[in-house]
This record gives sequence, C-alpha cells and structure tokens, in this order.
Amino acid sequence: MSYKFLLQDLQETPISIGTDKGLAKIGDALVNLSYSIAKSIIMSKNNDTNKIIRTGTKVSKEILSNALKQAGLKYFAKKRADAHDMANTVEAILAYLWLKNAISLDEIVSFLSEHLKGNLSNRKDEIAIAIQAFKNLLLHVKSSLPTNTP
Amino acid sequence: MSYKFLLQDLQETPISIGTDKGLAKIGDALVNLSYSIAKSIIMSKNNDTNKIIRTGTKVSKEILSNALKQAGLKYFAKKRADAHDMANTVEAILAYLWLKNAISLDEIVSFLSEHLKGNLSNRKDEIAIAIQAFKNLLLHVKSSLPTNTP
Repeated sequence: MSYKFLLQDLQETPISIGTDKGLAKIGDALVNLSYSIAKSIIMSKNNDTNKIIRTGTKVSKEILSNALKQAGLKYFAKKRADAHDMANTVEAILAYLWLKNAISLDEIVSFLSEHLKGNLSNRKDEIAIAIQAFKNLLLHVKSSLPTNTP
Repeated sequence: MSYKFLLQDLQETPISIGTDKGLAKIGDALVNLSYSIAKSIIMSKNNDTNKIIRTGTKVSKEILSNALKQAGLKYFAKKRADAHDMANTVEAILAYLWLKNAISLDEIVSFLSEHLKGNLSNRKDEIAIAIQAFKNLLLHVKSSLPTNTP
C-alpha cells in the first residue's frame, strides 16, 4: 500500500515540508520506531555476554535539532525556530521521504545502526552518538529533498 | 533486514511476551506510527472537501487496555494489571509479531484503516472506534500467538 497520496496537497518546498505539523506527528513515531530498533540491534551486538537487548527510546529534541543544524538543513525550519521546532522539522522531513517512498523504514534502521558507534548505555555518550547518526542520515537523504531556490 | 534475532532469548509464552518491557517500548512507536497513518488515510478519504489530512496521535492506554480485554487476551498481562500494564501488553504483542515477521507495518495499517469506521474528528467517538479496531486486530492475529497451555 502506498501512502503517497497523503502528500498530494503539499507544496514541495523546504518550508512547507519542514513546518508541516501532520508530517511532524507521523515522523515522531517513525523516528522513535527506527531509532528503537537500531539501538536494540547495536546494543544486542555490542555487549560482552551476547545478551539480547530490546529497548526503545524517544529521540530527544536535543538530538534532532542539533542534527538538523549540523546537516546544514536549518532552512527547512521556520525563522527563529527553537529546539522543539527544529526537532519537528527533522521528523517532518523523514516522514515526507518515507511517505514518498524515497526511503524505507528498513533503510532508516540500517543506516542508523551503521552509524551508531560507541557506548549507547551512557546517556551522555548516546546523545552525541545519536546526533552524528541523524546528521549523517540527513546528509544521506539531502539529494532527495527540494533545494532552497525560490 | 530481519529483526527476528531480537526475539532469540524470548520465551514464547503469553506472559513472557506480554510483560516484556523492551517489546512494549518498540511496540509503542509501532502502534503510534501505524495508527497515525491509518487515521490520516481515513480522515483524508472521509471528508467532504477531499482535503488531505496528515495527523498523528498517541494511542491511549484506555484504547489499548480495552482492546486487550475485549479480545480475550488478558492472560498475556500480569496478574492485577492496570490499564497502563495492559496497554504495554498490547504494544508488546504487536512488536513481537512484527519483529517475528508475522505481520508487517503495511498489514497493520491496512487492517486498522479498514476497521476505523465513523467520526474520528470527535475524540469520544474516536476512542470507541479505535478500541474496536485494535480489538479486531488482536483477534485477527490471535492464531499467530502462543496459547495459554502450560
């Protein structure tokens, strides 16, 4: 089933995509699901006892807003956007690409797990690692996104 | 990519599945994502102006706990489980089936959208409608779940 028709009315400009509230809501669950699986994969592979670790985490606005800035995609957010707005923008961008079939959930999970390197059990380390992973994901999908030309 | 290995250590009994905290966390995002898409699909199809409505909702514990009880699957939850515990149990069950490849995200979305009948713009109606949809989903997957025999 394709969900592409849910984008029918959407103007394909950075601001329209990046400030769409519905996309951000869909993207919130998409981001949390893919990150939870990627984190479970990595933590299950990287522990000494071969213990399987199933886990889930809500990806914080700190992680997503920094990833947006570091990927140079702040122009998808509204002017004077705060961390919360910028996190929504990342969620909206990823939901847009997913609904459009430009990226699959599997691809997001694989990409994140490849880039989650380090100690995810330490919350402070995890934040820094996750920022890098989401930044790289955004850079990876950048070519599928509209550019900022008027 | 298969995520099946994340179930390797899991005992395939109703209680082990239904009380697994990691599964519940993964299931939380899975349930919210599939419900958000299903709701967006239904609301976009069922409005007079053919307006596309992208939306997202966290599925409440009221919805999920009632669905569990009405589907007769309360034995997946711990004894004296409250609404919060039972909601976690539904999330864990669905994550279990999804990780196992017994059901895909697309199938959950399709099933929910087929069963979301009525006025989802009214919050009270939505709760009753969503309980029925999740109850039917649980009945639909029941045959893929372990039974309660010791």
